[in-house]
Amino acid sequence: MSQDVPDPELRAALHRAADMIADYLQDVGQYPVLPRVSPGEVDALLSGAPPLEGESLNAILDDYARIIEPNITHWNHPGFLGYFSITGSGPGIVGEALSAALNVNAMLWRTSPAATELEERVCDWLRQMLGLPELFRGHINDTASISTMLALAAARHSQSDLRIRDLGLAGRADIPELVVYTSDQAHSSCDKAAMTLGLGLEHVRRIESDRDFRMSFESLVEAIDSDRRAGRRPIAVVATAGTTSTTSVDPIDRIAELCRREGIWLHVDAAYAGSAAICPELRKEFAGWEQADSIVFNPHKWLFTPIDCSVLLMRDVDALRSAFSLVPEYLKTDEEGVTNLMDLGVQLGRRFRALKLWMVIRAFGVEGLQARIREHCRMARDLASTIESDPDFEVVAPVPFSVVCFRWRAGNSPVEQDSQNEALLNEINAQGPVLLSSTSLEGRDTLHLAIGNLKTTEQHIQDAWKLIRSAADRLSAAQPG
Amino acid sequence: MSQDVPDPELRAALHRAADMIADYLQDVGQYPVLPRVSPGEVDALLSGAPPLEGESLNAILDDYARIIEPNITHWNHPGFLGYFSITGSGPGIVGEALSAALNVNAMLWRTSPAATELEERVCDWLRQMLGLPELFRGHINDTASISTMLALAAARHSQSDLRIRDLGLAGRADIPELVVYTSDQAHSSCDKAAMTLGLGLEHVRRIESDRDFRMSFESLVEAIDSDRRAGRRPIAVVATAGTTSTTSVDPIDRIAELCRREGIWLHVDAAYAGSAAICPELRKEFAGWEQADSIVFNPHKWLFTPIDCSVLLMRDVDALRSAFSLVPEYLKTDEEGVTNLMDLGVQLGRRFRALKLWMVIRAFGVEGLQARIREHCRMARDLASTIESDPDFEVVAPVPFSVVCFRWRAGNSPVEQDSQNEALLNEINAQGPVLLSSTSLEGRDTLHLAIGNLKTTEQHIQDAWKLIRSAADRLSAAQPG
Repeated sequence: MSQDVPDPELRAALHRAADMIADYLQDVGQYPVLPRVSPGEVDALLSGAPPLEGESLNAILDDYARIIEPNITHWNHPGFLGYFSITGSGPGIVGEALSAALNVNAMLWRTSPAATELEERVCDWLRQMLGLPELFRGHINDTASISTMLALAAARHSQSDLRIRDLGLAGRADIPELVVYTSDQAHSSCDKAAMTLGLGLEHVRRIESDRDFRMSFESLVEAIDSDRRAGRRPIAVVATAGTTSTTSVDPIDRIAELCRREGIWLHVDAAYAGSAAICPELRKEFAGWEQADSIVFNPHKWLFTPIDCSVLLMRDVDALRSAFSLVPEYLKTDEEGVTNLMDLGVQLGRRFRALKLWMVIRAFGVEGLQARIREHCRMARDLASTIESDPDFEVVAPVPFSVVCFRWRAGNSPVEQDSQNEALLNEINAQGPVLLSSTSLEGRDTLHLAIGNLKTTEQHIQDAWKLIRSAADRLSAAQPG
Repeated sequence: MSQDVPDPELRAALHRAADMIADYLQDVGQYPVLPRVSPGEVDALLSGAPPLEGESLNAILDDYARIIEPNITHWNHPGFLGYFSITGSGPGIVGEALSAALNVNAMLWRTSPAATELEERVCDWLRQMLGLPELFRGHINDTASISTMLALAAARHSQSDLRIRDLGLAGRADIPELVVYTSDQAHSSCDKAAMTLGLGLEHVRRIESDRDFRMSFESLVEAIDSDRRAGRRPIAVVATAGTTSTTSVDPIDRIAELCRREGIWLHVDAAYAGSAAICPELRKEFAGWEQADSIVFNPHKWLFTPIDCSVLLMRDVDALRSAFSLVPEYLKTDEEGVTNLMDLGVQLGRRFRALKLWMVIRAFGVEGLQARIREHCRMARDLASTIESDPDFEVVAPVPFSVVCFRWRAGNSPVEQDSQNEALLNEINAQGPVLLSSTSLEGRDTLHLAIGNLKTTEQHIQDAWKLIRSAADRLSAAQPG
């Protein structure tokens, strides 16, 4: 007697879910992007205690349709233009469903040969697509936060005289302060990694960026010199290719040369924009990253793969292995010359994430992926031109990829303009068809529009612009005087 | 024009996947548990380069059926009795498929209200099921490795005089060595966390265990005293409820009292065995864990939830928040009084893992889950009796839950017995219908059998025992003399 849900009920539920998924993806544009729900409202629809007796999958799916689906933020909506807009495409969803059914823990080669070898192969496909040298090896993690933390742990471990893995950092008079450099535009994951690794937030030097929001190379050189003179040890630079606010790209080639000369680890955060490197004409933005020690690139951001899937590309994968490998008795195996994925990070348990990525790359093909990335970039450039041609608005950062940062020229002072832009954002997002997000650039509130959804077409972008424009008109009209 | 796979093709692929999943789960017992594949064989079936043009989902699913499914290790197989045997049950698979389609990043409440509130609610269901006090709050992570790392980071941060989050640990004369205590039976995740957090492997005290493989309380007290006398600072004890080798439970109540008295953080690793606490009659094993500062419990291990899903239960969730919260400009929001899940750990990106857990708990109900856990424990106890009654075998550890550790009494010396048991393991696993794993207890090779699969019945266990017995007979007969 099987004690899982009986086959006929499960099979029917899987088919019902198949239709619910296809229907949802087809009709998601009919929802407002942000659900019209206040804190606590979803919780009030849920039972306070778990049910004692089991319920039918049909009843649960009914509740899913009633309580959950309408009350999520619709990242699949073609008008989701905030944060980094993402798409977990159809092929990726099929892959995730199969991977949940296989339910392998690919910690060791022997606990799932196909999961291990497919991961290595698909990561090499990505390497080829990105135009990186053959020696780079990819390792799939859940998030860029973890990939960057692992990379900085490897950088820390590469200070081999300090024996940090064994002895730690605390209570040691023989260890200097260890410093990491990144720009004032870099992602917070760099700070979180430094906190976690015991380096400390104050040892993350946030190097100023230039007017295009790229790390100032001269300031980086000065900061490193100054730390060295003070007896601190620079261990890593985190350069960003595609910052979170403006998708600016740091001068990686010059930074790489500096890092090589100074013996400092170079980690490149290309979590979002890395996808653009699959287009040869966009690859020049990444010049120098082939000299990096590590690169993080998230297919779950702009390569149409369901969350989560972050690839850490290592120039020397043994640097990661020696930082983390630790094989307890109950996991010793005989196989020689195989990769045991658990050796390459903190996490022992590993989902089979390579499956969805394999399906996405095969379903779209490299040319299909390139065409989609190009189309997103084209729409962003066109929108930037439209915004620039409107005297009431200004584009406030270059648009190298598919993100446009802009501002409404309202108000008579910077402070007033900030509050007007904040009001505009709320007015836009309250309408339903469009979600934008905001950021701060040079201390000023800025609207951030990202195109990364496969469902977003030219028409959606035009409609979004009309909606933005008319929201601004309404707010202007409502001004006293 | 949608640029994802067109709806009819996607819908058909989802329905085909639904049948592939249901068929696989029905027929998985026909595969050998371990695929008969050598390193490199799967890779040889894969294309060396990514395809330029897109392919049909049907062609990709054909390749999945040909290359992937037969070459994974079948964790769903009723004869998978190695490591911690797990089940990603039907309801959980449906949940994962839906969650991949929604593709929300629940970093903020506003980026998915339902994902945030369902996570908090379902974690509270678990808390109730486990019989823990109301103040415990759950937070879902990917793995126990990360949950334990976060817990120890919170423990480190609770040394508030040291300002480690801001200043780090390196180059500081004012910081003592920081020490973590766990037993010689504890999971390697404790070591990996200490390495990652910069505490150092040598500052993990592996306290000896007693003959039942439980941490020796007296040795713990001595170790703490000795470190204090040497000027080191004990910051955390990691007690295990259900060790990886034997599922032994440390004396948590005494350890908890000690930790409270000494001002030391208590983290309980109940990643596997926590599930047993949903059965009132088994809860006594966990006495004292309600006094812990943090507990990790993985529904993806023995609560029939697809990998990954690890719940970190915090006595004071603000201790986690203050260790990790860091809100960059581009993620500032207006909502007050809501939980933003990104504040509770390293990872910013978050899958909607609560959905599958909600579906599992509802589909089976608390009583249904209890019945399944009890049945696994009963089968393990019965098998242990069978093994004990066979003069050629011995059970070498208590069986509090669903794991049996045993040894073949073969060979004339410990060394010989070890190699005979290793040979026996290989002989068993080569047959196909059963997978066992091994561990080392008191330096001796030991067979490890875990019952955690919903498909595993009394009959499978009897068949597995016959297979083990006959493998031993064959090896005996093949001995010279």
